[in-house]
Amino acid sequence: MTRRLNIAIIGAGRIGRVHAEHLAHRIPEANVVAIADVVRAAAEECAAALHIPFVTDDHRAVLTRPDVEAVVICSSTDTHAQLIEAAAEAGKHIFCEKPIDYDLRKIDRALAAVAQAGVKLQIGFNRRFDPSFKRARDMVAEGKIGEPHLVRITSRDPAPPPIEYIKVSGGIFLDMTIHDFDMARYLIGSEVESVYAVGGVLVDPRIGEAGDVDTALVTLQYASGALGSIDNSRRAVYGYDQRIEVFGSVGGIVVTNRTPDNAILSDAEGVHAARPLHFFMERYTEAFVAEMQAFVSCVLDDRPPPVGGMDGRIPVVMGLAAWKSLREQRPMRLTEIG
Amino acid sequence: MTRRLNIAIIGAGRIGRVHAEHLAHRIPEANVVAIADVVRAAAEECAAALHIPFVTDDHRAVLTRPDVEAVVICSSTDTHAQLIEAAAEAGKHIFCEKPIDYDLRKIDRALAAVAQAGVKLQIGFNRRFDPSFKRARDMVAEGKIGEPHLVRITSRDPAPPPIEYIKVSGGIFLDMTIHDFDMARYLIGSEVESVYAVGGVLVDPRIGEAGDVDTALVTLQYASGALGSIDNSRRAVYGYDQRIEVFGSVGGIVVTNRTPDNAILSDAEGVHAARPLHFFMERYTEAFVAEMQAFVSCVLDDRPPPVGGMDGRIPVVMGLAAWKSLREQRPMRLTEIG
Amino acid sequence: MTRRLNIAIIGAGRIGRVHAEHLAHRIPEANVVAIADVVRAAAEECAAALHIPFVTDDHRAVLTRPDVEAVVICSSTDTHAQLIEAAAEAGKHIFCEKPIDYDLRKIDRALAAVAQAGVKLQIGFNRRFDPSFKRARDMVAEGKIGEPHLVRITSRDPAPPPIEYIKVSGGIFLDMTIHDFDMARYLIGSEVESVYAVGGVLVDPRIGEAGDVDTALVTLQYASGALGSIDNSRRAVYGYDQRIEVFGSVGGIVVTNRTPDNAILSDAEGVHAARPLHFFMERYTEAFVAEMQAFVSCVLDDRPPPVGGMDGRIPVVMGLAAWKSLREQRPMRLTEIG
Amino acid sequence: MTRRLNIAIIGAGRIGRVHAEHLAHRIPEANVVAIADVVRAAAEECAAALHIPFVTDDHRAVLTRPDVEAVVICSSTDTHAQLIEAAAEAGKHIFCEKPIDYDLRKIDRALAAVAQAGVKLQIGFNRRFDPSFKRARDMVAEGKIGEPHLVRITSRDPAPPPIEYIKVSGGIFLDMTIHDFDMARYLIGSEVESVYAVGGVLVDPRIGEAGDVDTALVTLQYASGALGSIDNSRRAVYGYDQRIEVFGSVGGIVVTNRTPDNAILSDAEGVHAARPLHFFMERYTEAFVAEMQAFVSCVLDDRPPPVGGMDGRIPVVMGLAAWKSLREQRPMRLTEIG
Repeated sequence: MTRRLNIAIIGAGRIGRVHAEHLAHRIPEANVVAIADVVRAAAEECAAALHIPFVTDDHRAVLTRPDVEAVVICSSTDTHAQLIEAAAEAGKHIFCEKPIDYDLRKIDRALAAVAQAGVKLQIGFNRRFDPSFKRARDMVAEGKIGEPHLVRITSRDPAPPPIEYIKVSGGIFLDMTIHDFDMARYLIGSEVESVYAVGGVLVDPRIGEAGDVDTALVTLQYASGALGSIDNSRRAVYGYDQRIEVFGSVGGIVVTNRTPDNAILSDAEGVHAARPLHFFMERYTEAFVAEMQAFVSCVLDDRPPPVGGMDGRIPVVMGLAAWKSLREQRPMRLTEIG
Repeated sequence: MTRRLNIAIIGAGRIGRVHAEHLAHRIPEANVVAIADVVRAAAEECAAALHIPFVTDDHRAVLTRPDVEAVVICSSTDTHAQLIEAAAEAGKHIFCEKPIDYDLRKIDRALAAVAQAGVKLQIGFNRRFDPSFKRARDMVAEGKIGEPHLVRITSRDPAPPPIEYIKVSGGIFLDMTIHDFDMARYLIGSEVESVYAVGGVLVDPRIGEAGDVDTALVTLQYASGALGSIDNSRRAVYGYDQRIEVFGSVGGIVVTNRTPDNAILSDAEGVHAARPLHFFMERYTEAFVAEMQAFVSCVLDDRPPPVGGMDGRIPVVMGLAAWKSLREQRPMRLTEIG
Repeated sequence: MTRRLNIAIIGAGRIGRVHAEHLAHRIPEANVVAIADVVRAAAEECAAALHIPFVTDDHRAVLTRPDVEAVVICSSTDTHAQLIEAAAEAGKHIFCEKPIDYDLRKIDRALAAVAQAGVKLQIGFNRRFDPSFKRARDMVAEGKIGEPHLVRITSRDPAPPPIEYIKVSGGIFLDMTIHDFDMARYLIGSEVESVYAVGGVLVDPRIGEAGDVDTALVTLQYASGALGSIDNSRRAVYGYDQRIEVFGSVGGIVVTNRTPDNAILSDAEGVHAARPLHFFMERYTEAFVAEMQAFVSCVLDDRPPPVGGMDGRIPVVMGLAAWKSLREQRPMRLTEIG
Repeated sequence: MTRRLNIAIIGAGRIGRVHAEHLAHRIPEANVVAIADVVRAAAEECAAALHIPFVTDDHRAVLTRPDVEAVVICSSTDTHAQLIEAAAEAGKHIFCEKPIDYDLRKIDRALAAVAQAGVKLQIGFNRRFDPSFKRARDMVAEGKIGEPHLVRITSRDPAPPPIEYIKVSGGIFLDMTIHDFDMARYLIGSEVESVYAVGGVLVDPRIGEAGDVDTALVTLQYASGALGSIDNSRRAVYGYDQRIEVFGSVGGIVVTNRTPDNAILSDAEGVHAARPLHFFMERYTEAFVAEMQAFVSCVLDDRPPPVGGMDGRIPVVMGLAAWKSLREQRPMRLTEIG
């Protein structure tokens, strides 16, 4: 049998359970040996379903176990940076859900700890592992479209999260657009130098009252000279709208939405097809499995993670720049942020 | 915790392992307690991977276990009828891969044993559980297209199976078209009264030497007056081509192929998209899970299986009729077969 | 200025006016010099709109004019064969709407007259000139799909014609399927050897009372070994459904419907697109222009017409064979017809 | 017979000939009575082909003719404003190709003359009459998507015009984006308040040397709160890329490209479809006819033109604002321009 990586899960909420299940059932090289959650019952339920032998409500009990080689951090965002530091100091390899933090100093301290410990750190930008987006990126990298000139990203949620979540989310650019900022870098492999953001409160006035916007449009200028545009909405009534487009000197690539079925009805009214897959759990199932597979493989094979610490930091800088741009109504260079 | 159904797998080949894995990992109401294969090593390997407690090379050792409530028969086709009889006599509920047999007398004996024992029998026509085909059938049943008038089924494999397999397969109509015969019945809920089959050896002359055809076109006449057409090829170089169409008095439904990704490249040559999902394991993954879920649910809830014994028998009659039609070059009523 | 061909139109009904307008406005090498219709007012109205100098209610007055080099026959079907004979004897080149006749003897006499006179005869199978179908045929001819194995043609009208028309139409196979029989030959360049037809009265019982069927499915066996299938309905509520498919050893081609617009609406109910172009006048506008352009060019350049006399005769044989097959419930070889 | 409008064409270049042909052949209510071009031979050639009775090389000879009721101005851009003034003073209704001018003072003087004379003025923003874009706008107006939130316009030419043309074109925002500025207003019926433009020279360095950019991305903020984005490239190797998207509170509309044919080839490499229609003459044929039909109808029926003088002025303001935004690297309110 091939060698298996012993993994502990920290955080047994929705995304933690998803990762735990994928690691337990769909990644033969992974062995989930422990799970921690401050809500012990959540950890226990997950452990029972997946035959995870060790359960705790204290992540420190996980980090001190010698059999644990790697941790998957799925706890609340405000704990990420600190847990990365602690795990790095304990010599564990780390997968951490995005974002690391909204505070660049905390991010930098966490990344320093990782570098110091020489452990691997992968950030959970799952969309890079979506087969369609990955295929687009691969075609760009293979030169199928020549030099990239324009990037367009549409990313719209089916419905806003609860207003209480919005209030602590860091706002649309750090909570939602952050995935698109990562995608913008990933697709063409060039860095963004400046952003210009506009936004509005068109979906729900309570989002505005919380100091956030619910509809946004961000212009990107890349170091390569390419231009980019991201549009976001917190509510697309037809479902989760996730499309990208890259246009270049010798071609263009469009990625359309995925649907639950391919049945098309024609009747006297028109031609009717299914709406897109409803939300991220359905849309990115394959991507969640693939990112975890990539993490396990990079540890076992001692290769650099496909989404490293700086890949976690830069989209936060972009998100902060977008907020500053929106407030000051001017384009913002990333160097103005840090 | 909800009650779980104790299941034994008989046959640890490719499809047996697929079902075992789905039952173990993706269907919480299932509990795989035993696995049997005449090749004991195959059963053991599967058991180890999925934590199945009991392993044997003798299916009888499974049928005598009191904890086994249901069996999933995935052994070679020539053993299906006999295993159904034995399992029914042992009082076990039965899921059996298609076809039951190519001999109607054996089928009838097996179905009689099932009826006698009062156990449930579900046949493995997995395509009924494909989300797209199911959506089409549901829309037909909801009256979205009114009265069905025409059914078109395209079903082409990416490449022929080994010639040795062809020789014992029962020929294209019983091996390949049988799925389409089932689909033809399923889609509109009317029975077929007669078939007319034409065929040719256009892919590989060795298939012709084996007494089979590799390209076929079958016309169906339904009891309702509707007409149907099925076309098959053993080799579609672009991949697994699985499309259906139902046309009726107030609308029509088309189901197109599913693809591994939605990335579309436009360049100076044209607009290029991905080929269909390569073969049945990729194309029908969701369907394999859903059919097993349906089986487990119908046993636990004491409902009739969604694909019963007669659903297993009739497509065999259709396949035999198609062969007779091809040989005699005339339309064949199913009543001429049995 | 390039030389122009002097043309007379015989028949100023719907299709006659269409051809006249195309010749007058969209084909610079054509010069419409005369128009005849037994309903003189119809001819006069068309002449006034298009500045056609000579108008008559007697086609003979057209055929005796020395300035007329070619005629476009758009009169009622029962006059076609006789007009072809007369025009050939007058030494005029001929474009004739399909079908030449339903009586093979009349067809043969007309074709003999054409051969005797050495004039050109083109039959109005306009669909060959549709850009999509032509592109499919060209790709087949270029070898893009290798050896053709399967042909599928779907051809459904938005609504049945008046029952009075049905009664004199020759029935579905000679009135409607005849276009598909031509398409079947055109697409792969192989002759059909036998047909098997089934049909039903599912749309309108009056069609059945008229001795016709309104829904049909025809199986074709080609000399090359390829197989074909045509399905027809007199009523597709979603519009004119005109699709073809050719499948071969190294690829397959599908032609989907054309739509009036490309606007796609996504809402809470689904994703909605336009229905196909409504009927043949919209769907085949480009094809009508292109076939007339081809006729004018073949006369001016002294090349054989792209759709010759035998191309007009063979689909009639196929239609007669289909009727005989339907009635006798057996496959019919074309050699049994004549 | 219905009353016909007597029209004179001024300018017999490419677009002038297109309009003349449509008026002569496809719009029965139009009567082309005169054509003028400073290159008399061009006017004469067009007149001969279309049977236009009066030809001149002096537009004044057209404006003094009492039989001329309306003029269609297709001369070079620098003459538009002056010709509008002269035609208005002569009491002629006016269709004028876009743009009126790049100088707002000249535009305002022309519009004043039109208002003074009480004649009708329609500007040639043909894309509004494209069936797909019109369908999108109509669905927006019907409330199918609720309140519009986001507008996306992609507009890319297959290849740059000659560099000599670029030099006098007013630059990308006044030459190319101007159509998209009009579309942005048209689609949702709300005015744009500010624009932010970024651009680059990625296609051809000579375009940069001419002081222009060849790739651009413009952000729009509407009075309604909606946001918009336009992207342009002077060279899309796969052809003329003309897509729009409007997203709103209860739905979204996407308009995809139109293609010359619907034949789709599947082979071992992938699935291949046709590129978009090559350029504006193919893509917007129906739109050119429809805009001219609309002009003729609005004059004959004494209704306001569908694209009036302010519709010609505002996109010029937007283009000037985009240039200023690009140069000053900040968002620009239209009120800063005039």
